[in-house]
Amino acid sequence: MSEIRKDPLSPTWVIIATERGKRPCDFAETRNEKEKVASGQHRACPFCGGEEVEAPIKAFSIWPGEIDKETKDWRTRVLPNRFPALNPDIELIQREAGHIYHMLSGVGGHEVIVDSRRHADELATMPKDQIEAVIRTYRQRYKFWRKDPRITYVLIFKNYGLAAGASLAHPHSQVVATPIIPPRICQELEEAKCYYEQEKKCVYCEMIKTEKNAEQSRIIWENDTMFALCPFASRFPCEILILPKNHAAAFDQLSEQEVSDLAQILSTVLKRVDMILGDPPYNLMIHTAPQKLPGLLFYHWHIEIIPRVSMPAGFEWGTGIYINVISPEDAAKSLREAKCVSEEYLAE
Amino acid sequence: MSEIRKDPLSPTWVIIATERGKRPCDFAETRNEKEKVASGQHRACPFCGGEEVEAPIKAFSIWPGEIDKETKDWRTRVLPNRFPALNPDIELIQREAGHIYHMLSGVGGHEVIVDSRRHADELATMPKDQIEAVIRTYRQRYKFWRKDPRITYVLIFKNYGLAAGASLAHPHSQVVATPIIPPRICQELEEAKCYYEQEKKCVYCEMIKTEKNAEQSRIIWENDTMFALCPFASRFPCEILILPKNHAAAFDQLSEQEVSDLAQILSTVLKRVDMILGDPPYNLMIHTAPQKLPGLLFYHWHIEIIPRVSMPAGFEWGTGIYINVISPEDAAKSLREAKCVSEEYLAE
Repeated sequence: MSEIRKDPLSPTWVIIATERGKRPCDFAETRNEKEKVASGQHRACPFCGGEEVEAPIKAFSIWPGEIDKETKDWRTRVLPNRFPALNPDIELIQREAGHIYHMLSGVGGHEVIVDSRRHADELATMPKDQIEAVIRTYRQRYKFWRKDPRITYVLIFKNYGLAAGASLAHPHSQVVATPIIPPRICQELEEAKCYYEQEKKCVYCEMIKTEKNAEQSRIIWENDTMFALCPFASRFPCEILILPKNHAAAFDQLSEQEVSDLAQILSTVLKRVDMILGDPPYNLMIHTAPQKLPGLLFYHWHIEIIPRVSMPAGFEWGTGIYINVISPEDAAKSLREAKCVSEEYLAE
Repeated sequence: MSEIRKDPLSPTWVIIATERGKRPCDFAETRNEKEKVASGQHRACPFCGGEEVEAPIKAFSIWPGEIDKETKDWRTRVLPNRFPALNPDIELIQREAGHIYHMLSGVGGHEVIVDSRRHADELATMPKDQIEAVIRTYRQRYKFWRKDPRITYVLIFKNYGLAAGASLAHPHSQVVATPIIPPRICQELEEAKCYYEQEKKCVYCEMIKTEKNAEQSRIIWENDTMFALCPFASRFPCEILILPKNHAAAFDQLSEQEVSDLAQILSTVLKRVDMILGDPPYNLMIHTAPQKLPGLLFYHWHIEIIPRVSMPAGFEWGTGIYINVISPEDAAKSLREAKCVSEEYLAE
């Protein structure tokens, strides 16, 4: 059973999840083996269409509406993680240890979303209707976890490529449901609340306005309801922020129009990142309001995409300050100009 | 000139340092080239003893006391970083942009400490008196930067190995002096202050006491003045925290006895990490009080060492929560038991 521990020295939480039975010395070997994953060998991938029997026995396909109308095949699936960091079937217990230490039992959820039945698909290149199916699956998981009173936050994210932490080559996303509000979200909530109290405005809505009038543009692309930019304080080269233009605190408030527009902007932006950075590994994270607070006026859901082309090291770990050698203005310019090439690429 | 930008959405600061003249598309190539660094080719290394003419012209050797008494050769050197993220020779300017954005000019310092004249040295295996020379050089740099009224914080850190961000194979450390107190330090200060206000005790001093009485030990090693443990909420397998037993907020308050004991504990602990994890890449960071507040009663300097055997990915970036598959109790046990092997290793 995993434990959720609070660091007494900083607002850091750690999930100690030893279920995999690893010992410290196993890491010496793991480093050498990891490269094998990179090749993404197709043989007997349990996530491929037609290989479903290989997937965990508890496997379930949610969202029957996402079954392909012509072939009757599934389009996306949600499976329990084989090595879950958190588990829904245990009791939520709080415990102290030695005065200064606090911990919770590892209650929560950890799921894998299979983004497509096709092994070679990826978010940047899959058909738009398949991306829409993935987005609707995300939305469904947020709604599903809203029913569990112990869960206060749900993160849906995607690690693409070995260097971004993906241990499987088949296109997939992950869902982690936690009984605590994560530090990163607490920080965003505090900052946004503080702005709201002073200005009576959502700082994210205000940012969209500000960006439209910026001297040097950081906008990458937009459509009727979605907006993509390189943030003013980008921590990484070509870091991307995608925001809905209409204020909404929770991701699962997405309308059908927004599902379609989000699929379009993700496809466009990721194709351009591919063009500029050469199919880089990346992490994609959805930031949404805590499960119990979907109606916040000062918070605004958004998606962060960080290409993993630079590496946080001692300076970043020691300070929480990031050094970025590409300005977001230059990155946005490159991503805007990738347009023509990208369109040719689309036409192929 | 670099800029220090504040993110309006979270307590994140970013140094935009474009001096290296990189363009976004350069990153596609960099990834392939990086592996070359790993081999650590010795040819014409500007940091090696005897090759000093190759090092930057502004190069200066500080700390004449660290010259080898027999050979009269230098033992450690401090050089300006060739691509400094921050620069001491500019004016400190604050500026706003588009209402919600704030930035500072990139005032500060960025230095490289050459830890040894020998290319093949590393902290884990170099002679104890050489580690002492490195520690005294660290102490001298903290004292040096205390004179600059614009500098509020100094981080000294070490990236060891390519996967930990080291771009040079020659043993070296880095110094970054900033005009802001970094978010990570602000968080530690807040947490420690809060504990002090409630308990009238330093939480770090209290932690040492608590660890001595813990049911399952997380202690790795200790000597008269230094204490090494795997922290209760370790974010990474075999994460290590080194603390002085006597309360001191600032690293440069180190006595000669403590310099010697710190060299001994670093050598011992890093040798054991080598044994268990197989010479892993790591980041080592000194956390010390802000430059203007060396006498804080509630803060306690410490060293964090994080072996880079696991990789923060979407979950960690999206939440600030870490998943660690090795408990600190297991890691500490392995590191304690590595003793015999480690001593044989020392005797070789």
